[in-house]
Amino acid sequence: MPLLRSWLDAANDPAGPFPLNNLPYGVFSAHGGTPRCGVAIGDMILDATGLEAAGVLRLPGGPLLAEPAWNAIMAAGSDVWDALRARLTALLAEGAPERASVGPHLVPLAGAQLHLPFRVAEYTDFYAGRHHATNVGTMFRGPENALPPNWLHLPIGYNGRASSVVVSGTPVRRPWGQVKGPDDAAPRFAPSARFDIELELGAVVGTPSQAGQHVTVAEADAMIFGYVLLNDWSARDIQAWEYQPLGPFQSKATATTISPWIVTKAALEPFRTSTPAREVPLLPYLEEPGPMLYDIALEVALIPEGGEETVISRTNYAEMYYSTAQQLAHHTTSGCAMRTGDLLGSGTISGPTKDSRGSLLELSWGGKEPIAIAGGARRFIEDNDTVTLRGEARGDGYTIGFGDCTGQVIPALPQPYER
Amino acid sequence: MPLLRSWLDAANDPAGPFPLNNLPYGVFSAHGGTPRCGVAIGDMILDATGLEAAGVLRLPGGPLLAEPAWNAIMAAGSDVWDALRARLTALLAEGAPERASVGPHLVPLAGAQLHLPFRVAEYTDFYAGRHHATNVGTMFRGPENALPPNWLHLPIGYNGRASSVVVSGTPVRRPWGQVKGPDDAAPRFAPSARFDIELELGAVVGTPSQAGQHVTVAEADAMIFGYVLLNDWSARDIQAWEYQPLGPFQSKATATTISPWIVTKAALEPFRTSTPAREVPLLPYLEEPGPMLYDIALEVALIPEGGEETVISRTNYAEMYYSTAQQLAHHTTSGCAMRTGDLLGSGTISGPTKDSRGSLLELSWGGKEPIAIAGGARRFIEDNDTVTLRGEARGDGYTIGFGDCTGQVIPALPQPYER
Repeated sequence: MPLLRSWLDAANDPAGPFPLNNLPYGVFSAHGGTPRCGVAIGDMILDATGLEAAGVLRLPGGPLLAEPAWNAIMAAGSDVWDALRARLTALLAEGAPERASVGPHLVPLAGAQLHLPFRVAEYTDFYAGRHHATNVGTMFRGPENALPPNWLHLPIGYNGRASSVVVSGTPVRRPWGQVKGPDDAAPRFAPSARFDIELELGAVVGTPSQAGQHVTVAEADAMIFGYVLLNDWSARDIQAWEYQPLGPFQSKATATTISPWIVTKAALEPFRTSTPAREVPLLPYLEEPGPMLYDIALEVALIPEGGEETVISRTNYAEMYYSTAQQLAHHTTSGCAMRTGDLLGSGTISGPTKDSRGSLLELSWGGKEPIAIAGGARRFIEDNDTVTLRGEARGDGYTIGFGDCTGQVIPALPQPYER
Repeated sequence: MPLLRSWLDAANDPAGPFPLNNLPYGVFSAHGGTPRCGVAIGDMILDATGLEAAGVLRLPGGPLLAEPAWNAIMAAGSDVWDALRARLTALLAEGAPERASVGPHLVPLAGAQLHLPFRVAEYTDFYAGRHHATNVGTMFRGPENALPPNWLHLPIGYNGRASSVVVSGTPVRRPWGQVKGPDDAAPRFAPSARFDIELELGAVVGTPSQAGQHVTVAEADAMIFGYVLLNDWSARDIQAWEYQPLGPFQSKATATTISPWIVTKAALEPFRTSTPAREVPLLPYLEEPGPMLYDIALEVALIPEGGEETVISRTNYAEMYYSTAQQLAHHTTSGCAMRTGDLLGSGTISGPTKDSRGSLLELSWGGKEPIAIAGGARRFIEDNDTVTLRGEARGDGYTIGFGDCTGQVIPALPQPYER
């Protein structure tokens, strides 16, 4: 598919993140106004709430954009998703007769405040990257036992905390927690000294499933509304002490940052690619009927306060062993109902090489091999560091961008129980 | 505190579950009507939604009972909780002058349908019973390594799935899942053959905490609105295969049954009791300023289809090592925001003796020692078995009952992916 040309010149930049081919959905406020649903196009935001209220955008079962969250659209199903995308594409296309009625609903992206694009129902995180699992397993259990016995048979997942999900730009305060070094006699309560990031893609569930309903991989793919970048902030020292036997808990509950725009499945359609060859056969319920990953180039940038940016990792979502559709299908095997607004973290996306690892735990090999950054080195995240995840799918003369997923780590509270 | 006498005779039965001392909050519908907030009293339900609409019940910031869920009251805070309880107590007390205006809002409990009493925001489950953790650890890791090293230092918890929470009476379909026996070459996809219960108490969070806010144990206790009985249905064979390294996932996502009435913290106040002596000192943030457990007698009854009931376990909530207040305080150490409607499972409540264990895994010692029931024996739950949890706090001439927490296990789908 080539670039779809828009009457908005800035949307026709082949390297720009928001061409007409993209049309990602977010929530914004401008000039101190109330938050509204918006669509990124070029260097502008189309005020979708305003456009619907003005009658330029009419949706079956509408109004669906009255509240500042995309959940009503997400729940409405693929016919509405398709109708909305087709109408937006027509309104913004080069030569669109509606240009005059659309123009007043455009707001500059620069200066707009972006909010969480949807109400997060529940948050699940997976452990589905082969390289990441191998790296972490090698560090913790040695190379012979790197992959747990179940890893090649099912997408390992755990439930996270939905209340921890924040939009890009929200400061992340370094957490306190129980930590215990291998030689300590007893645990201490202290600020995390091994605070880390995890580069992930987040899938947003659109249409729900019912309790007791088993969802096939194809059906799961159809339920997904779109994708965001996701940074699953992780306190490695807290995690090491708490995670046996029931998994990570407070180590993952400080914050989970997502990028502000939901890039729709439709926009990513041209970039579908298959999961790698299976090393052992999957049970039939996990078999994919077609390509379910996407070719999305990803990078992690780190900027110390007042310093220069260093890109510390470059990788691709296509490195994953399990797709979101497989994860979502597995999620329903127990009869678990999935809901509109559920957020599924892909798992850390590491590539095969050292410079393509998606966490500092792996990049610095458990802190033993600090990585170089402009003007210094890092084992884990230091106070006032800003970490930005970026992602884009590169098409034929256009780019599908996600918008930055960024967060600055601010120092821990000095005495958390004093107020 | 003695029995508070009501003008409703049935509420004055010293063994009845719902005297004036209790006043638990639920959601009911009767005669095919829409669900409404109700208060159990004797053998009746007081239609609190109707009472507020009629102006007999006036609450600061009201109306707070217009929707069929107690969340608005829960969020309103302890002044409103106290005002509501005081007003209900006055309206229903022996000699209350308002009797004539209250009477028309009473509906017989028998025949009313009960619904989830609140919207569950997120669900967390803990592993905080010393006897349960020792039993399970002994089975899985041997008696020397029964308790994980962190167990005596922190209340181990994991995030569960809020969409799995159902009200008492909801049938529970036996789940399918990946299972692999120790001698199997590869996993199979099959109905769970080791489907189990877990006897727990569920705490309902009333007032929220903010992201980044550290909550003390005393503050955590103040945030709790009330308690329900909770059965954390668990597929032990699915759990055994999936739970390393990130904890239980689909094994716990089929259903979590709660009793229909929220028994308030105020009603349980006379039954406060302390956690047992600490075997190792706790970090200061987990120390309790006063008694934070409750003396609540609990039992588990099992009834095969068409058969007789057997009480398979009798225990007490006072057996727990960690209280809900400690768990909730720990939950916020990372800066995790807690929300109105969060549900915290206590962890399985097992006592020190064989007949006081809170799961079949423990009662049948991993299935090796079937327990006798009327007309048969059980290792795990069989199809069409009904399991009922019961709980009561026994006061001076009165009883605080929870109402049954019951669920029947119905057979697995024959072919889950055929429709």
